[in-house]
Amino acid sequence: MPAYSIGVDLGGTNLRIAAVDEQGGLLEKVTLDTKVSLGRDHVIGDMCDAIQQLVQKNQGVGSLLGIGIGVPGIIDMETGMVRESPNLPDWADYPARDEIEKRLKTRVILENDANSAALGECWLGAARNLKDMAMLTLGTGVGGGLIMGGRIWHGMSGMANEFGHITVEPAGALCGCGNRGCLEAYASATAVVRMAREAAGNGSGAALSRAAASAELSSKTVYDLAIQGDDAARKVFARVGSALGIVLSSLVNAFNLPMYVVGGGVSSAWEIFSPAIFQELRQRSMVYAATDPDGSNGTRLGASAHVKPLGPRKTIITRALLGSDAGLYGAARLAMIAEK
Amino acid sequence: MPAYSIGVDLGGTNLRIAAVDEQGGLLEKVTLDTKVSLGRDHVIGDMCDAIQQLVQKNQGVGSLLGIGIGVPGIIDMETGMVRESPNLPDWADYPARDEIEKRLKTRVILENDANSAALGECWLGAARNLKDMAMLTLGTGVGGGLIMGGRIWHGMSGMANEFGHITVEPAGALCGCGNRGCLEAYASATAVVRMAREAAGNGSGAALSRAAASAELSSKTVYDLAIQGDDAARKVFARVGSALGIVLSSLVNAFNLPMYVVGGGVSSAWEIFSPAIFQELRQRSMVYAATDPDGSNGTRLGASAHVKPLGPRKTIITRALLGSDAGLYGAARLAMIAEK
Repeated sequence: MPAYSIGVDLGGTNLRIAAVDEQGGLLEKVTLDTKVSLGRDHVIGDMCDAIQQLVQKNQGVGSLLGIGIGVPGIIDMETGMVRESPNLPDWADYPARDEIEKRLKTRVILENDANSAALGECWLGAARNLKDMAMLTLGTGVGGGLIMGGRIWHGMSGMANEFGHITVEPAGALCGCGNRGCLEAYASATAVVRMAREAAGNGSGAALSRAAASAELSSKTVYDLAIQGDDAARKVFARVGSALGIVLSSLVNAFNLPMYVVGGGVSSAWEIFSPAIFQELRQRSMVYAATDPDGSNGTRLGASAHVKPLGPRKTIITRALLGSDAGLYGAARLAMIAEK
Repeated sequence: MPAYSIGVDLGGTNLRIAAVDEQGGLLEKVTLDTKVSLGRDHVIGDMCDAIQQLVQKNQGVGSLLGIGIGVPGIIDMETGMVRESPNLPDWADYPARDEIEKRLKTRVILENDANSAALGECWLGAARNLKDMAMLTLGTGVGGGLIMGGRIWHGMSGMANEFGHITVEPAGALCGCGNRGCLEAYASATAVVRMAREAAGNGSGAALSRAAASAELSSKTVYDLAIQGDDAARKVFARVGSALGIVLSSLVNAFNLPMYVVGGGVSSAWEIFSPAIFQELRQRSMVYAATDPDGSNGTRLGASAHVKPLGPRKTIITRALLGSDAGLYGAARLAMIAEK
């Protein structure tokens, strides 16, 4: 009997819900505002109403396997509670999973949103057909996800994959977490804006300085300038790329996975920042060199050129394919692969 | 029926072989010189002769499950060939596993020595009773091992766990791999000697300068000075600790494992360098802070003190317990947990 599941991407601004069949076909998608200011119960009410309507409409499709919900925050997988979520402050220490299960009378799985996005890209996106992969999601912050053997790696308490807080520069820029020099302080949308303002403050580039004078400066504005060839804006993205390259080199050296995917809003600037990623990888990862047999990423020119290539087992670093839908598809996938 | 296996630690200087029972009891241990200069075939001959004698002696113990061999280098797990080993140059691209199996007529498993050491500590050492752990081995270089679900994580081509080549300082000291700022350039015995010579060159400490004037300066000499309270020598080990702390923070943030073990010869200086490790961890890992519920490592004082603790699931960073036997026991364990 055919079956489907429902994925939810619970963002601080948008609440997106999709019904997806087992082949990854989209049955229906709805987008609501997340009315955070009205409180947790209101948001859960909106979500459950919308899900019930989707279930009603898709009764003919087959059986509902369950509901996966991607949440921006740290999830306690055992209790199904949100431990910490800056965007959803009143969700902490509340039995969200159990409450939603009670209302909808079907299985519910809460998952970190970056893990959901990684699962989505592994199922239907850049890493489809692979069982092992890692993903970095560059948004307001930098999230990470790791899939091993087709399943999300959670670590002992659901706090694994915090790749955004790997140190890039020990004495570097201050990060929101209180530490200095985290990847998030160089490769998030927030960091792009900060670095653009710093560059403008140093008198780098008239166009960037004009843009930075606006209170509304966004990473998109910096990206648009970079696309137009603005040198100061391009330098900001080169810093994004070199920070990503340093951390990706560490991940390649630590995990030896076949693929690492870069997604999230900032990854729109992939063409501008990715050359700096590959430059760092060629310099910093023997593993990358040894798993790039045809030298198509230029590895043979790198510092590790003496390492012999390893047959056809290539390390691929690439951008995500599913855009903002990765987390939605990944959330839907959760209910399909959950252990009974 | 009781059973045992044989572990081999094939170092560039010593060839150590042990028969170990399934409870981890040592039945017998022999140590030979590794006669690298006489060539691969001679070394394999010595090894096989010694193993056959051990098997002969232990006939009454039970059945032989197989032989595990820890090798300093990159192993192709599929073919059982040494891909690259600086200490055993003529072993590359030679079907070592198959050749040894043919001679001994029992199952043989080749494994990277740092992976073997991690497996040994996970079986009988600091991480006994745990199924997930990572280990850093500080020797001439810095090796890494990762155990997940009781098994060694190899990555797609046996090149995972190269924690020694994670970047600590992007523009830092030159590493043997050709890159700059790798952990190995700060936390290996080689690095201790280099940093001590640098410090002596800068006029730091009369005792260290005298020691550095000798061509024989070893990390042990620097350690002895540090133990005696020599300030310049202690600063060298503080640098070892801070580099380890930066990389351990990244590993904690990426893996969220219950335990990370530091072993190898340089770890004798644990009491001197470990305070710097914990200082970095407190600053650089929210995950560490959230998984140290009693604050016994002083986490509550750190930058991430706002992160709520996570029940009893503590992150432990500790030194190895088995010393140079970790790799030997781990190698013996390989044949016990191998898939049929």
